[in-house]
Amino acid sequence: MEGRKGAVPGLGPFALTDLAQGMSRFGRLARSVDPARPWAHPRADVLDGQTFRTWVRRTLRTRSGRAYFDIATEAVFAADASDISLLHALCYAVGNGDLETLVAVDHGAQQDRVVGGSVVVAERLAEGLDVRLGDPVASITQDRAGVTVRTRSGREHAADRVVVAIPPTLAGRLVDDPPLPAARDQLTQRLPAGTVVKAFAAYPTPFWREDGLNGQAASDRGPVKVTFDVSPSEAEVGVLLGFVEGGEALRWQRLSEAERRRQVLGCFVRHFGEQAAHPTSYVEKNWSEEEFTRGCYGAHFAPGVWTAFGESLRPPVGRVHWAGSEYAVEWSGYMEGAVRSGRATAREVLDAPRSSGPPHGA
Amino acid sequence: MEGRKGAVPGLGPFALTDLAQGMSRFGRLARSVDPARPWAHPRADVLDGQTFRTWVRRTLRTRSGRAYFDIATEAVFAADASDISLLHALCYAVGNGDLETLVAVDHGAQQDRVVGGSVVVAERLAEGLDVRLGDPVASITQDRAGVTVRTRSGREHAADRVVVAIPPTLAGRLVDDPPLPAARDQLTQRLPAGTVVKAFAAYPTPFWREDGLNGQAASDRGPVKVTFDVSPSEAEVGVLLGFVEGGEALRWQRLSEAERRRQVLGCFVRHFGEQAAHPTSYVEKNWSEEEFTRGCYGAHFAPGVWTAFGESLRPPVGRVHWAGSEYAVEWSGYMEGAVRSGRATAREVLDAPRSSGPPHGA
Repeated sequence: MEGRKGAVPGLGPFALTDLAQGMSRFGRLARSVDPARPWAHPRADVLDGQTFRTWVRRTLRTRSGRAYFDIATEAVFAADASDISLLHALCYAVGNGDLETLVAVDHGAQQDRVVGGSVVVAERLAEGLDVRLGDPVASITQDRAGVTVRTRSGREHAADRVVVAIPPTLAGRLVDDPPLPAARDQLTQRLPAGTVVKAFAAYPTPFWREDGLNGQAASDRGPVKVTFDVSPSEAEVGVLLGFVEGGEALRWQRLSEAERRRQVLGCFVRHFGEQAAHPTSYVEKNWSEEEFTRGCYGAHFAPGVWTAFGESLRPPVGRVHWAGSEYAVEWSGYMEGAVRSGRATAREVLDAPRSSGPPHGA
Repeated sequence: MEGRKGAVPGLGPFALTDLAQGMSRFGRLARSVDPARPWAHPRADVLDGQTFRTWVRRTLRTRSGRAYFDIATEAVFAADASDISLLHALCYAVGNGDLETLVAVDHGAQQDRVVGGSVVVAERLAEGLDVRLGDPVASITQDRAGVTVRTRSGREHAADRVVVAIPPTLAGRLVDDPPLPAARDQLTQRLPAGTVVKAFAAYPTPFWREDGLNGQAASDRGPVKVTFDVSPSEAEVGVLLGFVEGGEALRWQRLSEAERRRQVLGCFVRHFGEQAAHPTSYVEKNWSEEEFTRGCYGAHFAPGVWTAFGESLRPPVGRVHWAGSEYAVEWSGYMEGAVRSGRATAREVLDAPRSSGPPHGA
């Protein structure tokens, strides 16, 4: 399923009709979900009781139509359609516009990049703040008087309230005293991060532009299924980025370094020609290997999780509040969602009574 | 769906035929799965790509037939049929005999209890061993020379090899240095424990026996769907045990203490008569609240997890080996499985080269 140019893949009329009908049905169903409370949907148990894959297989009739949804799922969730519930796919799509917006570059979620890299945002935000790096938090202890954060090196920080702004699965690894309530703890056991590796290849020039190509590709043949042109804006060199995602990433990361590189460059050659075979440098970033990331782009909800545990996602636990992209109602999973969640949580903390409110279990 | 006596619920002929056909189809499909390598099934992606609920809804035609599978799933997995993949249900059933054996008391997995309570097994095993309690492990550091276990209080224990014999989701909360490989870490993000509360009511006598009842009940009406007579063997008092499991446990544990008790006793009265309304004592045990348990009876596999991550479950990581019921091929999720896994891991450690074998990443 590949066309050399354009956003619409080279599909026959039957496949195109199938895809159009499938996207229309998905969109209608998504608009029936309240992204702030997906568990409240009148048919939540049915929508959350099946995988997104089950819905795609039942709804789409053509191989190409199904492949579109599979690629979109991998690209958006860094997970396979097997891994997430239909309700989660719907909730995520409607909270972030729609499925087309999520995968789109022009006027879509993939349109903008930050000059200098995304780290610039964090660096600017940190200016003038007292930021302590290199000493990870080990435990959080709270009582009626306040909360104490203890780091792995044994340093202690006292506060009135704490905002935990790391992914849920990592938040679940902190030691909480008193221990978190059952429902909140069981939720964090069920919010894994997706699986994604970024592979970059640099060339003397963005040679694909000479062929009228923009560097974007989407294919149902892996390991790289989605590519982007991420050359610096001055374009003194050309850089192609390939994403290896979901189950594809699991299989591929077991290969040798040489074989991984061979397969990635093979994908680039398929899309952009023989010149892609000989980069001046080649770099991989496996986010699942990073101790303080352990996966991307965000947490995903397997079947049953939203309906059974969703209500425990956002409420603070005593003096501990949660923030991060996973907690956003709109643009969850994106930097935009992280900002929105940060603002909502800041408001929650400011509105909280200054030194009252006993924690759970106290 | 209840009959007052006997193992076969009072179903009409159509429902009984539906149930018999469903169980037969499930059994046949289960026998095609190798419990040691479920991911190797020729149709693994299809079996792992759907929830067990999807299969039950598609295969069973009657409300009662579906209810049987729903109750059995809750009772066996302490999770809903939405939460686990069809492949996991099949793998678990075939590794532990079959679905009927799992839920059965006579000649089944529920037949025996340990006089004095299960803790006796641990106490006997601990006799003569140097067991340190009350100081939980915080981190595990390994290199070419050996491995060091550090506790929360700062004590250090050096060893040649370490066996981590806690549930996977809790193992994922330890700090590993070097950090665990990506696939192993992402697996532990995806192995949540089930949700179960045990509710006990004690009476002056096991009065239900006078009515010719054995204290066992299974019902599709909650919150208690399964009960057992757990009176001490001398029967100087009568004790009924009710399990509240899966999503039912989530909803129920949000209620007040008085309302929870009222609902549980209501279930006991429904099965065993008005005498059940007035116990001499009533106790609940919510395993999800326990910091070092965080759920029962074992970990379960959501769709996609066995096929993508299953191969990372059992292999040791350098000097760190895994043991526990979740790692057993047969009787995973039961004490029997824990014993089998313990023996297999002891063999693995004994067979490992004494002081060689660099850890991962070293």
